Amino acid sequence: MRGRGDRLAAGLAEHELDLVLVTDLTNVRYLTGFTGTNGACVCGADTRLFLTDFRYTERAAAEVEGWEVVTIKDDWLGGVASHLGSRFGFEDDHVSVRLLERLRAKLPQGVEPVAAGGAVEKLRRVKDEVELAAIAAAAELADEVWRWSTESGLGGRSEREVARAAEARIRELGGDPSFPAIVAAGPNGALPHAEPGEREIGTGELVVFDMGAQLDGYCSDGTRTFAVGELGERAREVYETVRSAQAAALDVVAAGIGGKALDAVARAAIASAGYGEHFGHGLGHGVGLEVHEAPRLSPRSEDELAAGEVVTIEPGVYLPGELGVRIEDLVVVTGDGCRNLSGMPKELQNVT
Amino acid sequence: MRGRGDRLAAGLAEHELDLVLVTDLTNVRYLTGFTGTNGACVCGADTRLFLTDFRYTERAAAEVEGWEVVTIKDDWLGGVASHLGSRFGFEDDHVSVRLLERLRAKLPQGVEPVAAGGAVEKLRRVKDEVELAAIAAAAELADEVWRWSTESGLGGRSEREVARAAEARIRELGGDPSFPAIVAAGPNGALPHAEPGEREIGTGELVVFDMGAQLDGYCSDGTRTFAVGELGERAREVYETVRSAQAAALDVVAAGIGGKALDAVARAAIASAGYGEHFGHGLGHGVGLEVHEAPRLSPRSEDELAAGEVVTIEPGVYLPGELGVRIEDLVVVTGDGCRNLSGMPKELQNVT
Repeated sequence: MRGRGDRLAAGLAEHELDLVLVTDLTNVRYLTGFTGTNGACVCGADTRLFLTDFRYTERAAAEVEGWEVVTIKDDWLGGVASHLGSRFGFEDDHVSVRLLERLRAKLPQGVEPVAAGGAVEKLRRVKDEVELAAIAAAAELADEVWRWSTESGLGGRSEREVARAAEARIRELGGDPSFPAIVAAGPNGALPHAEPGEREIGTGELVVFDMGAQLDGYCSDGTRTFAVGELGERAREVYETVRSAQAAALDVVAAGIGGKALDAVARAAIASAGYGEHFGHGLGHGVGLEVHEAPRLSPRSEDELAAGEVVTIEPGVYLPGELGVRIEDLVVVTGDGCRNLSGMPKELQNVT
Repeated sequence: MRGRGDRLAAGLAEHELDLVLVTDLTNVRYLTGFTGTNGACVCGADTRLFLTDFRYTERAAAEVEGWEVVTIKDDWLGGVASHLGSRFGFEDDHVSVRLLERLRAKLPQGVEPVAAGGAVEKLRRVKDEVELAAIAAAAELADEVWRWSTESGLGGRSEREVARAAEARIRELGGDPSFPAIVAAGPNGALPHAEPGEREIGTGELVVFDMGAQLDGYCSDGTRTFAVGELGERAREVYETVRSAQAAALDVVAAGIGGKALDAVARAAIASAGYGEHFGHGLGHGVGLEVHEAPRLSPRSEDELAAGEVVTIEPGVYLPGELGVRIEDLVVVTGDGCRNLSGMPKELQNVT
């Protein structure tokens, strides 16, 4: 992971910073490989310091590569402050108001913290081969759990039972759920953030099943909407609307397209079918060490996609009190298209 | 939960605040019962506003009681700012530097944010009967999982296998792990924050088994150290040292004692047995909606215990490269002592 510190350091000059202090633990993990709960990086042109406390000295020795490990005793903030000099950047989007005040009190005179959040998140957008392999393996694991769940049958079971069983299966297969699985049947499918409840899944219903696995720290995220028994005409029409909107977006994903333009492709397809007001969220988001990270694909996005980014493509239509459909794939952006990591079919699947 | 908002409002005057903005989601849950991922409270003498977005309007209607639910559309920070007036407190220990800047930009002229973190955490220290019942039930569930784990045998299994099985069992019994279970055998027991690994648990070893369950949002936390087969003399001596240090601390827990004084009782017992330098952490901490919360019991604590607080009592001795012992109970502080929620025996248990 040595190259990651180099890339971070290379970006400092343009912000007129000598050093940057990284305290967000996901960012620290990305830079160093450290998986404990207390650690920080100080990075500059010739500086690669990883700071932790005695509890993690041994773990840091095993995990951290390319950074000098420093164990701070007793006064954590004082120890951190002693390694900072002149103008240093800090993660203003993660550091609390109080923590900054307390750190300031420990800084030598003339040492000035400068708001500089988001630098590591920007590096994290483009994944390397090791990261892509972990995300692909997580997506494959989730695919296996969808197959297992639907083979077990959905009708007559409660949403919660299906969700908890899927999470347990993810763990049996060696992963962790990257978020609590969403299983939302019938009218509950219209609530994009429904908690799986005691409601029994009925025949003739659509079931939104949103799930992800985490392997070696990296997440997958995907959704399929299944039909239990035969659907009415409206449900089939909504399903096909979402499916063709997703296909349209997948057709144009490639390095260089804007998150706003890509979102607009799916949004236009849904609007032209008459469901425009029922697609109430963005088209997708980046996925990596966090299940939601940069870039964003939405009407307000200012991001532009680059090769090696991993994003979800997940249009949906939600008819309040009636039903919901969401179809979500996880794709790797390439120079001229994308590589789809989601292996589950998207033709409407009728399950028992 | 109406009384909680009243208690929060009652404390505002002493800080010369008109309103307080609560954004930490655990604090929001404590005040309102809301379990979603976006919500905030605005609380004042005559103000009980709960703010959320359209995704959670329905859930808020079901969960929130005693607070007026307001759904903010589109511009979240602008919506929050529109409900704030004059001098309002904010949670400076949770709000990031950037978020405060962005909120400030939305505030009407003359409206001033004042750092006022920790107020809800202070209220959360003393638990009511409903909270105590949830914590006691979580502790009972964990006890059942220790019994089940040791009946299944520990020797010959890997630490990780035992830990993952215990977590799965917690879920089967309707809870969630309140943190990843720690199972650390032999020399690994000397690393207080060891990750359970592939190392096989051997005969003649001590196994530190630290685990907690979460039920209805409330956590338990406890540790037992088991013997697999017959131990050597030194291991037995260390075990008895920790056990008698814990007994000494449990004897003096009561409302009115300081966290520092209580810690000192156990620390003195361990030091007098010659292991003083091998007890490298504090004696305990509060437990509630979070597995670590106020008060703290440690050499640096300035907290004083009050009736209704729930704390761990967990002395330990760690001999690097050799073994570790920790014994941790969860107790409710009472006027003249404590009620112990941990039902597992503390005499050395020999398991297979």
